[in-house]
Amino acid sequence: MKTPKSIQRLTDSFQRLPGIGPKTAQRLTYYLLHVPQQQLEEFGEAVKSLKQQTKMCSVCHNISETDPCPICSDDSRDKNTICVVEQPLDIMAIERSGAYKGLYHVLHGSINPLDNIGPDELFIKDLLPRLKNGIIINEIVVATNPTMEGEATSLYIQQLIQKHNIKVPISRIGRGLPTGADLEYADEVTLNKAFEGRREY
Amino acid sequence: MKTPKSIQRLTDSFQRLPGIGPKTAQRLTYYLLHVPQQQLEEFGEAVKSLKQQTKMCSVCHNISETDPCPICSDDSRDKNTICVVEQPLDIMAIERSGAYKGLYHVLHGSINPLDNIGPDELFIKDLLPRLKNGIIINEIVVATNPTMEGEATSLYIQQLIQKHNIKVPISRIGRGLPTGADLEYADEVTLNKAFEGRREY
Repeated sequence: MKTPKSIQRLTDSFQRLPGIGPKTAQRLTYYLLHVPQQQLEEFGEAVKSLKQQTKMCSVCHNISETDPCPICSDDSRDKNTICVVEQPLDIMAIERSGAYKGLYHVLHGSINPLDNIGPDELFIKDLLPRLKNGIIINEIVVATNPTMEGEATSLYIQQLIQKHNIKVPISRIGRGLPTGADLEYADEVTLNKAFEGRREY
Repeated sequence: MKTPKSIQRLTDSFQRLPGIGPKTAQRLTYYLLHVPQQQLEEFGEAVKSLKQQTKMCSVCHNISETDPCPICSDDSRDKNTICVVEQPLDIMAIERSGAYKGLYHVLHGSINPLDNIGPDELFIKDLLPRLKNGIIINEIVVATNPTMEGEATSLYIQQLIQKHNIKVPISRIGRGLPTGADLEYADEVTLNKAFEGRREY
């Protein structure tokens, strides 16, 4: 028996999402067959209008409903520190932790030659005008992921700022053992970074 | 920072799907922010029109574009055998195997008291008229899942048919070790069923 067209169409759409394979796509589609039409309308409308009701902040490139975004326009925040992250979701995680009160800069990815993503595909250069526009920046915290791509991106940003002769302290977020981890199972790189990053009491 | 409304709305919709938690829902939503509007339109439309372009077969309750479904209206199939399954997806799996050439009956679930699903919430009673309408049924193969719920449903069907004094052989799909399995790691119930279901050469 051939799969009905409308089922195939939704299965294909689900399958284009990251981490969703053919089996999961099929399971989700058949699940939705048992859901009230009202809920399908809501879901479909949410997909269609996702980008229409969001903007990219022209200052930090975060995704929000307003431009500039709530963080850039919040007067209570420290305007002299910029934290560079790969994705808007990273901002959410940092905000939840409450560890940081400055501004952000979202690159929307990391340098990844295998996926043909170079510095020009990211919002890296957009960082420079923010360092020259009169507001004194005391520190740039590079919080890209602790992966090959994130490290390459972090290195590129550091060199770019040096090349433009901008004098600003740049730091990288701390590396080491995550809370709750088991030393016995930690990998070599993490342990190396943990020793490098050890601090006096 | 508060999550933009349209992002929250889609995240909520994703989270209602089975097996998708808050983190995955958020990841999928932020992924879709980088996708062209055209693809979002297609996805949204596929969700909305999913049920509008599918029907439930009035004979076997399979989901298809036509009523009766392609299997019920296929003259080359054996009309004297009915295989009872829980979900339309089970039909797909059986059809792929090519092991069966008869008709189907889809229950759309299994008896599950914990979820408040009793026999009346399923298409179990709809099986009876199919056994009395003049076409001689040689065999009913109950192919509900080998789970607690599937077994309870299978037992219920067997007793229902007996209670209505319908003389028709009922069988249950074979139980045992799946192909490619490792005997060493098989659980007790599976091994028990495998010995019970042993066959002479």
